[in-house]
Amino acid sequence: MSRPELVIGFDADDTLWHNESIFEATHERYRALLARYHPAEIVDRTLFATEMRNLDLYGYGVKGFTLSAIETAIQLTDGKIRAEEIQQLVELGREMLAHPVVLLDGVAETLAMLAQQHRLLVITKGDLRDQERKLMKSGLGEHFDHVEIVSEKNEATYASILRRHAIPAAGFLMVGNSLKSDILPVLALGGAGAYVPYHLTWAAERVEHLPADSGRLYQLKTLRDLGQVPGIRFLA
Amino acid sequence: MSRPELVIGFDADDTLWHNESIFEATHERYRALLARYHPAEIVDRTLFATEMRNLDLYGYGVKGFTLSAIETAIQLTDGKIRAEEIQQLVELGREMLAHPVVLLDGVAETLAMLAQQHRLLVITKGDLRDQERKLMKSGLGEHFDHVEIVSEKNEATYASILRRHAIPAAGFLMVGNSLKSDILPVLALGGAGAYVPYHLTWAAERVEHLPADSGRLYQLKTLRDLGQVPGIRFLA
Repeated sequence: MSRPELVIGFDADDTLWHNESIFEATHERYRALLARYHPAEIVDRTLFATEMRNLDLYGYGVKGFTLSAIETAIQLTDGKIRAEEIQQLVELGREMLAHPVVLLDGVAETLAMLAQQHRLLVITKGDLRDQERKLMKSGLGEHFDHVEIVSEKNEATYASILRRHAIPAAGFLMVGNSLKSDILPVLALGGAGAYVPYHLTWAAERVEHLPADSGRLYQLKTLRDLGQVPGIRFLA
Repeated sequence: MSRPELVIGFDADDTLWHNESIFEATHERYRALLARYHPAEIVDRTLFATEMRNLDLYGYGVKGFTLSAIETAIQLTDGKIRAEEIQQLVELGREMLAHPVVLLDGVAETLAMLAQQHRLLVITKGDLRDQERKLMKSGLGEHFDHVEIVSEKNEATYASILRRHAIPAAGFLMVGNSLKSDILPVLALGGAGAYVPYHLTWAAERVEHLPADSGRLYQLKTLRDLGQVPGIRFLA
C-alpha cells in the first residue's frame, strides 16, 4: 500500500510550548500598573488598538509588543506616567524574552515518535532571534528537518514554503492552535490541518467561523491525538 | 574554458541601500534630546553599551535599538526624562522603520547585469519584517534567487546557507560593507569576499585588522567595480 509520505508542519507558540499565557501574565501586570488611571477593559482595548495599528510596521513579537505597551501607557496617562514606570515596561518585555520555554503536555514524546516516520517542519511567525532562542531552549530542534520563521502566515507564505521544500500540498498536514494562521491558509492550498486549540487565543488570531467541512480538518485536544489523523504513522 | 559558476551573495544594509546614515541622523536627534543632561560622547557611549548588553536578547534591528534608546535615556536622566520625550523616541524608531529605501549608487544597474549571468542571493541580518519591507521597497527583489534573513552572520550561518543551496564555498563570493559579518566568515569557509566599505560603520561591526592575504579578498569602491573580480561575468 503506497501513499505519498505525509510531511507535517508545526506551529510553535501555543502549539509546542506555552506563549499566550506569558503574554496574559504580562497583561495582568500592565493593567495593575495603569489601574489608577483606567479600568482594565479600557487598558486592554487601547493596547490592542495600538498593537493593531503598529502591526504592519513592527510585525509580531515581544519587542513590538513592548513598544506598543509603552506608547499606550503614555497615551492613557496623558503623559503623566513616570520614567521609572516605563522602565518597568522595558523590563517586562525583557522578562518575556528571557522566559523559560515550557513545553505543552505530550509534545516531546509525540515529536520523538513522529520524527521517526515523517519529515517535520516548524513554521512560526514572530521575531527571528526570539523564535530561534525558544526553539533552542525547547530541546526539540533535532526533530525538525527545517525551521521556517516567517513574518506572516498566509497562503502565499505556505505556498512558497511547500514549493521550496518540494512538498505537494496534498501530502502536507499543518498542526497549530490558530485557525487563522495555521489551518485556513493550508486548507485553501489543498493541504490538511490539525487544529489543536490552546486555552487562550490572542484577539488578533480569532476567527468567527469554522471553515466548511473539507474532510481535511481535524480538531484534536492535544498533539498526542495526532495518531487519529489518516496518513500519520505513529509507532510508539 | 569551464569553471564552476560563481554564486554571489549580497549584504543589504549599507551595501545595496543606505542604512547607517539613517541611524546616524537618529543619533543626532537623540543627542539633541539629551543635550541638557550630558555631552554627546557620554550619550553615544552609554547608548552603545546598552545596545551591546541587550544584543543577545534583542538581536539586530530598529525595534531593539529603540528599546535600548529608551532605556538609556531613562538611565542618563536619572528618570527625569518626561513621557512625551520618550514618546518622541518611539516616533524616532517608527520613522526609521518607515524611512524610504535609498539605493547606493550604481546598485540597480549592476544587479540587473549580474543577474543575467549569476545566481544572486541576499544574505542580511536584522529584523525579519523590516528587512523584507526594505527589499520590497528597493525594487531589487526580482534579481535575487533567494533572500536569507538571519539573526547572526557567522561561519555557521554561511555554512548552513551554502549547504542548503548546494553552493560549494569555492564557487561563492560574498559582497558587503562589513569585514566582520560579510567577509571574514566567508573567507574562513574558503569562499571569496568583495569588501565595499560604506562611509559609516557601526561600532559593533568594526574590526581591528584586515585579514591576511588569501588571494580571495577584493576591496572595491562601489558595486560597479565587481567586474574586476575574477569569475564574474559582467556583460553590459
